Amino acid sequence: MHVAVLLFAFALTGTTLALDNGLMRTPPMGWLAWERYRCDIDCENDPKNCISENLFMDMADRLAEDGWKELGYVYVNIDDCWSSKQRDDQGRLQPDPKRFPGGIKKLAHYLHNRGLKLGIYGDMGKLTCMAYPGTPLDKIELDAQTFADWEVDMLKYDGCYSNAMEQELGYPLMSKALNATGRPIGYSCSWPAYQGGLPPKVNYTQLGEICNLWRNYGDIQDSWDSVLNIVDWFFENQDALTPAAGPGRWNDPDMLIIGDFGLSMEQSRSQMALWAIMAAPLFISNDLRTISSGAQSILRNEMAISINQDALGIQGRRIVKEKSGIEVFWRPLSKNASALLFFSRRTDMPYRYTTSLSKLSYTAGSYKVCVYRLRRDVYRVSTWFTRGERVNFGKQG
Amino acid sequence: MHVAVLLFAFALTGTTLALDNGLMRTPPMGWLAWERYRCDIDCENDPKNCISENLFMDMADRLAEDGWKELGYVYVNIDDCWSSKQRDDQGRLQPDPKRFPGGIKKLAHYLHNRGLKLGIYGDMGKLTCMAYPGTPLDKIELDAQTFADWEVDMLKYDGCYSNAMEQELGYPLMSKALNATGRPIGYSCSWPAYQGGLPPKVNYTQLGEICNLWRNYGDIQDSWDSVLNIVDWFFENQDALTPAAGPGRWNDPDMLIIGDFGLSMEQSRSQMALWAIMAAPLFISNDLRTISSGAQSILRNEMAISINQDALGIQGRRIVKEKSGIEVFWRPLSKNASALLFFSRRTDMPYRYTTSLSKLSYTAGSYKVCVYRLRRDVYRVSTWFTRGERVNFGKQG
Repeated sequence: MHVAVLLFAFALTGTTLALDNGLMRTPPMGWLAWERYRCDIDCENDPKNCISENLFMDMADRLAEDGWKELGYVYVNIDDCWSSKQRDDQGRLQPDPKRFPGGIKKLAHYLHNRGLKLGIYGDMGKLTCMAYPGTPLDKIELDAQTFADWEVDMLKYDGCYSNAMEQELGYPLMSKALNATGRPIGYSCSWPAYQGGLPPKVNYTQLGEICNLWRNYGDIQDSWDSVLNIVDWFFENQDALTPAAGPGRWNDPDMLIIGDFGLSMEQSRSQMALWAIMAAPLFISNDLRTISSGAQSILRNEMAISINQDALGIQGRRIVKEKSGIEVFWRPLSKNASALLFFSRRTDMPYRYTTSLSKLSYTAGSYKVCVYRLRRDVYRVSTWFTRGERVNFGKQG
Repeated sequence: MHVAVLLFAFALTGTTLALDNGLMRTPPMGWLAWERYRCDIDCENDPKNCISENLFMDMADRLAEDGWKELGYVYVNIDDCWSSKQRDDQGRLQPDPKRFPGGIKKLAHYLHNRGLKLGIYGDMGKLTCMAYPGTPLDKIELDAQTFADWEVDMLKYDGCYSNAMEQELGYPLMSKALNATGRPIGYSCSWPAYQGGLPPKVNYTQLGEICNLWRNYGDIQDSWDSVLNIVDWFFENQDALTPAAGPGRWNDPDMLIIGDFGLSMEQSRSQMALWAIMAAPLFISNDLRTISSGAQSILRNEMAISINQDALGIQGRRIVKEKSGIEVFWRPLSKNASALLFFSRRTDMPYRYTTSLSKLSYTAGSYKVCVYRLRRDVYRVSTWFTRGERVNFGKQG
């Protein structure tokens, strides 16, 4: 019965909607508050870190002044806990007046003046996940227009406090409503994460037509275990997921936690490399005012970013999974190039891994190889491997 | 039957042996090869990192020249895979001639000339864990004498390839044999780890009489999960373990993995602080030639080291375990001082934790407080809390 309803809804909505906002032809990049700042609204005790316009302006300053913007990190995205607990007299969402005294539109201007974009958060349901006012079906058009009036550039539309049937209606409806405002607003849908992330419950064809990106799976936490759990899920289900991705439509394994408290430098490099292979949105969630130079250098790595942002927009796959704990990932790139990632899950020490072109499904031939080493001493090597030569990636591969 | 044999052996050996070498009145500190370098004997491909005299001399140079020695890190300890696969003509252990062409005695002199000490590895059994020649019962006196002849300062005596009864005899016998050489040799016993680590199988009274330190639990791996697993085990069993520790006799939760690949800076600070509270031996196992300044500053933290090295030698305990993931550890120190450690297992963000003197079992009064912050921005505060004042350790406690 439940499935029948879903199929019906798919059929209904699939014909009436298509996302055609021209946005996010490569995975969006920017900063998103949630993982690092959660619902910290205690501005009295924690004025520098509470969810407030000051926090977002501080991050905007850092993105604009410290060279992040030029690398592509242009979104500054508000997450939950920004709003007042009540809508205004006219039923519109409004920011908490103490924490956002200038209002969202002024904040958007602050960002736009610096060449940045503003993202905001809503929830397809009665309440947001942290129990602020949601955007249920009857408020979608109003709230979409409010966001457009505020000159917001992106919306993350969460799914707490709604049921599957409401979501079936609400996510396409918000897509339509955003388009109807005439303002290009990137649209991030949490819908598939609430559906378990996989077909047949999730219709990725439809998602690609209505959303620019979507969260397929649970929230990332500040730990390596969480990163590995996400990576496992995405690559175990790569056959279902990778076809869904492409320019303007991205699977979103959630934020980068590089620069926070839970990852070593090597683990940070691994997350950056894996997110590049996955063609994942790159949303930093840390304190850009105090981030270490080590974490910065990883987030700023131009090879990783260029792979992530490749114009073809094909999501990469895991192609080798060794008993030794070594895994190899591959992503086809434009200009007849491709990216290979050699990843070690070992917890003993660097491991010597030897492989061959044929094992990696490359034909014999001459290749120009650029190496970005994940473990220690980041460096690049450009060299030519002659025909049929075995490619040995060395001790710290 | 098995237990009866053990009890008999205890009774037999308990009366005949006592470790009285005067060593390690505070937990030993130094460098130990295993966690970082394992059994890497591939000197052809990996000359800088293979288990060889060059590696130990390199580490000795760093300890002596970079100021580690002055902080107390004086042992340079060889682990498994140092020896030839065969004993020599006279039945003595001998180092692999290719990797230790100068021999162990010369290496010991190299260290002694720099104010350092040499540790070596043996195994109470037919073979070491990596299948090099072990030191079974009939070789104990010979090998103890060989180590003394080489002017070795410490022995880690592992327990692979032996049964419980052999271990019951062998560990005390090696203690006696080391003492009989006349050379003070610190004695690290892996015995309790092979017995499950807990009474009644483990007799900690006897261990304190025959060993300077002992491994109670499994090997540490290069991951935060491994650190937490070890911490959990030690503090869940603190009632059995803490009474065993004292000057000259230490529980050993295994090496510090700070400076390797698996810990973030905050996790590294946590391991250092937890090992200080535990009165644990501080054996670094990383590449001191390339260690980051961040990891160095943690391993060199003088407050953590001074707590670890406190003359009373009382092992600390966990005194609070909150549902929020905050735990508090406490260690009594000399000069009427004590150490408190506030530890967060959370993976979301820094957490505001408020507590009181009474909850921490401190009486109302005036205390001089030094704070070493674990998360970010390491700093120290010295201040006086007046009578009855609530101690609030702040947002990033």
